[in-house]
Amino acid sequence: MRIVPVSLGRRSYEIKVGGGLLPRLGVECAALKLGRRCAVVTDSNVGKQFAKSAVESLSAAGFQPVLVAVPAGEKSKCLSRVEKCHDQLAKHRLERKSFIVALGGGVVGDLAGFVAATYLRGIPFVQVPTSLLAQVDSSVGGKTGVNLKSGKNLVGAFYQPRLVLCDLDTLKTLPRREYVSGLAEVIKYGVIYDEPLFARLERDLSKLLKRQETTLRDVVARCCEIKAEVVGLDETESGLRAVLNFGHTIGHAIENSSGYGKYLHGEAISIGQVAAAKLSQQVLGLPADEVGRIEKLFIRAGLPVSIKLDAARRKKLFAAMLLDKKVSAGEIKFVLAQKIGQVVWGQKVPTELIQLAVP
Amino acid sequence: MRIVPVSLGRRSYEIKVGGGLLPRLGVECAALKLGRRCAVVTDSNVGKQFAKSAVESLSAAGFQPVLVAVPAGEKSKCLSRVEKCHDQLAKHRLERKSFIVALGGGVVGDLAGFVAATYLRGIPFVQVPTSLLAQVDSSVGGKTGVNLKSGKNLVGAFYQPRLVLCDLDTLKTLPRREYVSGLAEVIKYGVIYDEPLFARLERDLSKLLKRQETTLRDVVARCCEIKAEVVGLDETESGLRAVLNFGHTIGHAIENSSGYGKYLHGEAISIGQVAAAKLSQQVLGLPADEVGRIEKLFIRAGLPVSIKLDAARRKKLFAAMLLDKKVSAGEIKFVLAQKIGQVVWGQKVPTELIQLAVP
Repeated sequence: MRIVPVSLGRRSYEIKVGGGLLPRLGVECAALKLGRRCAVVTDSNVGKQFAKSAVESLSAAGFQPVLVAVPAGEKSKCLSRVEKCHDQLAKHRLERKSFIVALGGGVVGDLAGFVAATYLRGIPFVQVPTSLLAQVDSSVGGKTGVNLKSGKNLVGAFYQPRLVLCDLDTLKTLPRREYVSGLAEVIKYGVIYDEPLFARLERDLSKLLKRQETTLRDVVARCCEIKAEVVGLDETESGLRAVLNFGHTIGHAIENSSGYGKYLHGEAISIGQVAAAKLSQQVLGLPADEVGRIEKLFIRAGLPVSIKLDAARRKKLFAAMLLDKKVSAGEIKFVLAQKIGQVVWGQKVPTELIQLAVP
Repeated sequence: MRIVPVSLGRRSYEIKVGGGLLPRLGVECAALKLGRRCAVVTDSNVGKQFAKSAVESLSAAGFQPVLVAVPAGEKSKCLSRVEKCHDQLAKHRLERKSFIVALGGGVVGDLAGFVAATYLRGIPFVQVPTSLLAQVDSSVGGKTGVNLKSGKNLVGAFYQPRLVLCDLDTLKTLPRREYVSGLAEVIKYGVIYDEPLFARLERDLSKLLKRQETTLRDVVARCCEIKAEVVGLDETESGLRAVLNFGHTIGHAIENSSGYGKYLHGEAISIGQVAAAKLSQQVLGLPADEVGRIEKLFIRAGLPVSIKLDAARRKKLFAAMLLDKKVSAGEIKFVLAQKIGQVVWGQKVPTELIQLAVP
């Protein structure tokens, strides 16, 4: 097991990465000195596989868990679903010292985290991410939230978990498309922060695609370390944290304008990162061979790197870009790469160049 | 004008109390260095009276305000209304540096504050409370939130405003019942924290009932000072802040079990405070003459001090008490008075005594 500390003063916590962690959930929660009542929020797919293990582990440790299952999929990330969860917590008399366990992928983590952030003005919560995407990205750093009709994650709160348990065993049964989607965030960490990680991914991609445990453990822990470092320096995204959004401005717009669910998040940001790499070449002189290495790694991982759009869809995509949370005074700002392992944020890019980068 | 500072480190802000402040809203916001776009959230009643002045003042100072009006009344404090507000903010392209002005009473402040806390994971907001209750209580201290079917304020966030402007002129047109309801919170500050304030209220009650400006200014500013002091010591209600809930455990249960709206908040906590004073006599030996002074002041102010309940309503009321946010391990804890001006919190009270105190 690897332990990655997230340093945020009084809100500090640990990320634990390894096999066989889910059966230890109860013991781990007991060490946090929380109230006895808790709710395990999960979705209909993940629940079938792992809810029993989670609930049994919590019960064995003396907790009184109640299961709150939501429909699988992005559609559960909405305020009416938040309210249904709140209602269930109130029904089961959860109190301020009670806690929530988010057991699932990014949707469950974002939703359950926001439910925890807002129920009784905030109760503790523990993340048990069961997808690669959630383990390396969404479960770490305290971003929680839901979608509006007009955009993804437009509603939410910065709210830190008390603990993140990344059980690598839960990745074994992940559908290949979803697993590969998670790799898009993994590759991102190499591009934005860590050339040696990028090089290792080029080298060990086949092991990673086979979900080999030691490689996976090292890589997941390293991604969490990078995210923890960035978040520790800028918890509420006033500056540095923006680097984590490399590829996301275009990626989010793709997800939004094509209707949530058509592209998985990792697929959308794979296209977005390759577009951002091309913009980086134009604006910051990122060398052509590095653009090539980036594009090639995404392709080798089995991720899409381009999108074909008719005029109407293209218009919709550019409109969606203007609704990004990072837009300031109507101006879209990009995270762009100077070289692999080093990016800068807050880059203005002429609209014509963006048009060219999204072919 | 009186200025009351609220000291919360990086989240510190000022409360300004005086006449003629609403027309200065734009100038005051300009001093905060916020983005140009903003939304004035108000309700159908308050909007008619004051929205024009607020919007004109903001426009004159160079801001681009949009008006978001919600139906007047407690029913607007719900998540579906929050979402409608979010949708309007997104439609008008409010960004992270944009801000919200909450123009209205407690409902508008709680709702708009929660909207600000959760839109784009938090944008700045300014409170312009237009009721006495909101000026002395709900606009100060950062509690924001909405109701669930199963209870009041069960959903929310601790989120501080950047500024609170208490324009005493807005109190002039307040219906008498609502104004008097606000006095219940004013009297509370005397009971929990400040015997001289309580004595002054006994002395100057008639001036206060006439809404005499200098008395009102002194009293509102003193209430805000007390609240600011308490909140400064315990922002997220882990201890001391609980004293502000004197009379509220029973008060909230009255509001909840009788259907929101039948009793105004101040009326419910007036009954709740007199009941708490009687409990204080039994449990902590609060002298009978002080119980009498407390009861008499509420009566003189024109507030109800008792409630008649049939068996079914009584059962409902006690069930509602168990859902209070301050309940821990199923135990109701009370704030009780040792003497006027001094209370203790976390007091266990035998159920029989509670039954007797709510006649």
